[in-house]
Amino acid sequence: MALVVHKYGGTSMGSVERIKNVARRVAKWHRAGYQVVVVPSAMSGETNRLLSLAKELTVSPDRRELDMIAATGEQVSSALLAIALQSEGIAARSYAGWQVPVITDNSHTKARILSINCDKVISDLDQGRVVVITGFQGVNSDGNVTTLGRGGSDTSAVAVAASLKAKECLIYTDVDGVYTTDPRVVPEARRMSKVSFEEMLEMASLGSKVLQIRSVEFAGKYCVPTRVLSSLTDPLIPLDQEINSGTLINFEDDDKMEAAVVSGIAFSRDEAKITVMAVPDKPGIAHSILGPISAANIEVDMILQNQSVAECTDFSFTVNRVDLQRAVEVLKNEVMDVVQAREISTDEKVAKVSIVGVGMRSHVGVASLMFKTLSQEGINIKMISTSEIKTSVIIDDKYMELAVRSLHKAFDLDKAPESVTSKL
Amino acid sequence: MALVVHKYGGTSMGSVERIKNVARRVAKWHRAGYQVVVVPSAMSGETNRLLSLAKELTVSPDRRELDMIAATGEQVSSALLAIALQSEGIAARSYAGWQVPVITDNSHTKARILSINCDKVISDLDQGRVVVITGFQGVNSDGNVTTLGRGGSDTSAVAVAASLKAKECLIYTDVDGVYTTDPRVVPEARRMSKVSFEEMLEMASLGSKVLQIRSVEFAGKYCVPTRVLSSLTDPLIPLDQEINSGTLINFEDDDKMEAAVVSGIAFSRDEAKITVMAVPDKPGIAHSILGPISAANIEVDMILQNQSVAECTDFSFTVNRVDLQRAVEVLKNEVMDVVQAREISTDEKVAKVSIVGVGMRSHVGVASLMFKTLSQEGINIKMISTSEIKTSVIIDDKYMELAVRSLHKAFDLDKAPESVTSKL
Repeated sequence: MALVVHKYGGTSMGSVERIKNVARRVAKWHRAGYQVVVVPSAMSGETNRLLSLAKELTVSPDRRELDMIAATGEQVSSALLAIALQSEGIAARSYAGWQVPVITDNSHTKARILSINCDKVISDLDQGRVVVITGFQGVNSDGNVTTLGRGGSDTSAVAVAASLKAKECLIYTDVDGVYTTDPRVVPEARRMSKVSFEEMLEMASLGSKVLQIRSVEFAGKYCVPTRVLSSLTDPLIPLDQEINSGTLINFEDDDKMEAAVVSGIAFSRDEAKITVMAVPDKPGIAHSILGPISAANIEVDMILQNQSVAECTDFSFTVNRVDLQRAVEVLKNEVMDVVQAREISTDEKVAKVSIVGVGMRSHVGVASLMFKTLSQEGINIKMISTSEIKTSVIIDDKYMELAVRSLHKAFDLDKAPESVTSKL
Repeated sequence: MALVVHKYGGTSMGSVERIKNVARRVAKWHRAGYQVVVVPSAMSGETNRLLSLAKELTVSPDRRELDMIAATGEQVSSALLAIALQSEGIAARSYAGWQVPVITDNSHTKARILSINCDKVISDLDQGRVVVITGFQGVNSDGNVTTLGRGGSDTSAVAVAASLKAKECLIYTDVDGVYTTDPRVVPEARRMSKVSFEEMLEMASLGSKVLQIRSVEFAGKYCVPTRVLSSLTDPLIPLDQEINSGTLINFEDDDKMEAAVVSGIAFSRDEAKITVMAVPDKPGIAHSILGPISAANIEVDMILQNQSVAECTDFSFTVNRVDLQRAVEVLKNEVMDVVQAREISTDEKVAKVSIVGVGMRSHVGVASLMFKTLSQEGINIKMISTSEIKTSVIIDDKYMELAVRSLHKAFDLDKAPESVTSKL
């Protein structure tokens, strides 16, 4: 019988009553004949409670010890779920990351999974047990407990599914799938029944919070069919019935997927634009400006270089809004004199809007339709950045909702994806 | 330099502020040149909080999963202590039981320690680190987390001290040592600076709650010098200065210890007496009565068989008061008809008072002085039980305090121990 991995987030595991509810859901799959491995998060609020104890002791606690503390949250929720399953009459057993073991590298608080030995898990499954594996954590080669960073339980679930060659990894969450854009901004936003791995990767990196980006990378690397779906509705069993439930991240280049030129629209208000003005246009200028920024651990997103007057150039880039002040200080202290810049201007009232779709690869004119749409609404584009399957623009943040709504309509995202290509 | 093991209970670890205080105490020892291993309990209340979550799910949760849950309490407190030590400028590292590893048998929730591999700990100590090891827990040979039962952190500390051949195991608690009897009953009660291992074992088994009895057994088996002392007063360093602090459980048969005929008086109000009356006096009667009691997992303490009338006997025994009703039901349902007993009488208004001392071995007349003292106070003795170093009596519980006070005086326990033998 088929093997599936279920992942439940902190909200689903948030109380004893909710854990009972998760146990009833898992029991249904088990009784229908599925082998089930469950990867839960800690009970909501628990990880914050634990870490705040450490923060009371010192502003920068040792990360090895932080991992020892944080990892207990999932150990408790996993054992509670095993007990709840047993109360449902299902044989069940929980394992902490080190017991499986889930081997990671040594980067405490943001470790990466290197390998998973599933021998114990397979033996338990073969004996008819449901196996519960703590999300978010592992153990390094020296036997130290590690954690994967916020949202790491998604990655744990996908990695376990990859290791077990599961039929699907089902990520249960409080939304019922991945949408063409945020339904709070565009009420006509449509749930996608499928999304390609690359699109999901762009969506995640552009701030769509449904899945942790590293779990998407993992799903892509090991081709794990991963579905995002709601933990609030009754599960559809067998798995084939789930075909119209949630959003499946898949790896098949089927015709239907080709047809979707633009799959979704992502946006973010966490941006700030910095321009270093009137810099002499010499080779190496980008490195002179961005080197110190990178050394200060500030992440740069878009980069733009414009020739303004003869032999001079304006150099612009965007950073996360919270890093703006720090970035400006670095520029004033370490960069301005070196590159002989005239002045620095900043703009923190900007937003980023992106269209994403694998279909862009094979269709010209997608970016043009985007620019035309924004122009018809009187929205000025401040910066543009493109990748193979994504076009992003920086605009005034007061126009963000308008831009998202008009692009959603222009690319017919409220309709079935097949009808889009005719417009181009 | 000398190696010492410190154990701190849940109250000492009860808040971030208190953990800082423990770190400051440990730091003093470390700065004085000692190698220190610390074994903390969970923050007070935490183990109960965790187990109550499991109890909300089912009345009898799986014990393997309970251990997974309960063990997290010490993992958190140990890592917090390591962080607090680092904030004091001391290199420190925490290990969970499975990381050391502390190997136990398979008895979940009441496991026994089989062995401890201290290689990692020794290597850390040699590098100048303080090592924090979770109390209360270990791992069995299959890699499952186990816990040692309530008070198990004492046993962890003594076992770690044995494994490391520590100079002393210092058990910090909220009392400043082991007393000749409870100072709340006898204000003249005196702290003992030393107590023999066998006496401590009897005191622990008789209800003196200072140390878990299994930790005392462990200390005896491996001859670990173990000291009970207060976590509220400033530590005296070097260790030699602690000679007048707390109570040392020791293993040397020195002259001073010989002199103490009676070292302490223990008492307990948790007793109930059951008498099965007028049982035909035949071989095997004790087994017929106590077999079913034992099968019902009820612990029997004292046992007394009195011939009452010809060919008949009264058979009395004591149980913990909370087990009385259950014991009576077992007797009525499974025993009375079989042994042809006339009736069952119970007495739950009884208390047990015991005098304990290694000197009893070599001195006659100790029990006589006890009986004489009680008789002079008009206290009737209902049952008597003796061992090599202990004499216990069951009396009316309303006389318990009076008995303890008059015995404490009769054996001169408020004075220095040397003066006692002259009385006998």
